[in-house]
Amino acid sequence: MKESEGIDVKLMDIVRFDKNGLIPAITQDYETGKVLMLAYMNKESLEVTLKERKACYWSRSRQELWLKGATSGNFQEVMQISIDCDADAILLKVKQKGGACHVGYYSCFYRQVENDNSSLSICDKLVFDAEEVYGKSNKK
Amino acid sequence: MKESEGIDVKLMDIVRFDKNGLIPAITQDYETGKVLMLAYMNKESLEVTLKERKACYWSRSRQELWLKGATSGNFQEVMQISIDCDADAILLKVKQKGGACHVGYYSCFYRQVENDNSSLSICDKLVFDAEEVYGKSNKK
Repeated sequence: MKESEGIDVKLMDIVRFDKNGLIPAITQDYETGKVLMLAYMNKESLEVTLKERKACYWSRSRQELWLKGATSGNFQEVMQISIDCDADAILLKVKQKGGACHVGYYSCFYRQVENDNSSLSICDKLVFDAEEVYGKSNKK
Repeated sequence: MKESEGIDVKLMDIVRFDKNGLIPAITQDYETGKVLMLAYMNKESLEVTLKERKACYWSRSRQELWLKGATSGNFQEVMQISIDCDADAILLKVKQKGGACHVGYYSCFYRQVENDNSSLSICDKLVFDAEEVYGKSNKK
């Protein structure tokens, strides 16, 4: 099969939410390919994401829709959405404003395992002051 | 904080498995940044991955350790492991042999949403014959 060939399948007809009504969504920088975060979507947040072209998740801790950037201004403009073979994971390619991580890093994956297979080191840069952006809330 | 600064934290001391003992792991091509798959690890599979430097997951469908490539030969050599801010997601950067997807594509995310926000199209290339590689088993 060639690349970019249309198939007679619609996203909402195949997407599989888990028993809690959620699907994991990987968010990746559209230009650099850097993986920014992993979050979860319910049906409504996926619909908002598709319609608004801004990443919207379901906050498991707050049990509410989570339009990424609503508190921080660090919106994610969605450039591409794909779904995996088992239809139980979503991949978003986004243009990230500011940074994705609530700690202040560009990516949430800012700690890597060292050569001893155990210790961690910082592998990303702080791009904003988390306290200034979020105050004392823990919204993301 | 500078990039690559060591921190006095060990992976196994902070990693958070869910109530089923699992953590989602995103797997990304080390060279191109292409996201290949999302799978799950339990403590044992993470330990195997760290030790062997080959990606090892926990198969939720088969309820067993899943050394990626054991059936297909499509092993994933692990070049980097990172963990996110909440310590509840893992990112692997790997050198992928063959292809990652059991359907035969390089990436499991081979279907993207079209401009109508609904239809899907193929956005990746078939790189191997799945039936030839896996036979009639559904192992990955």
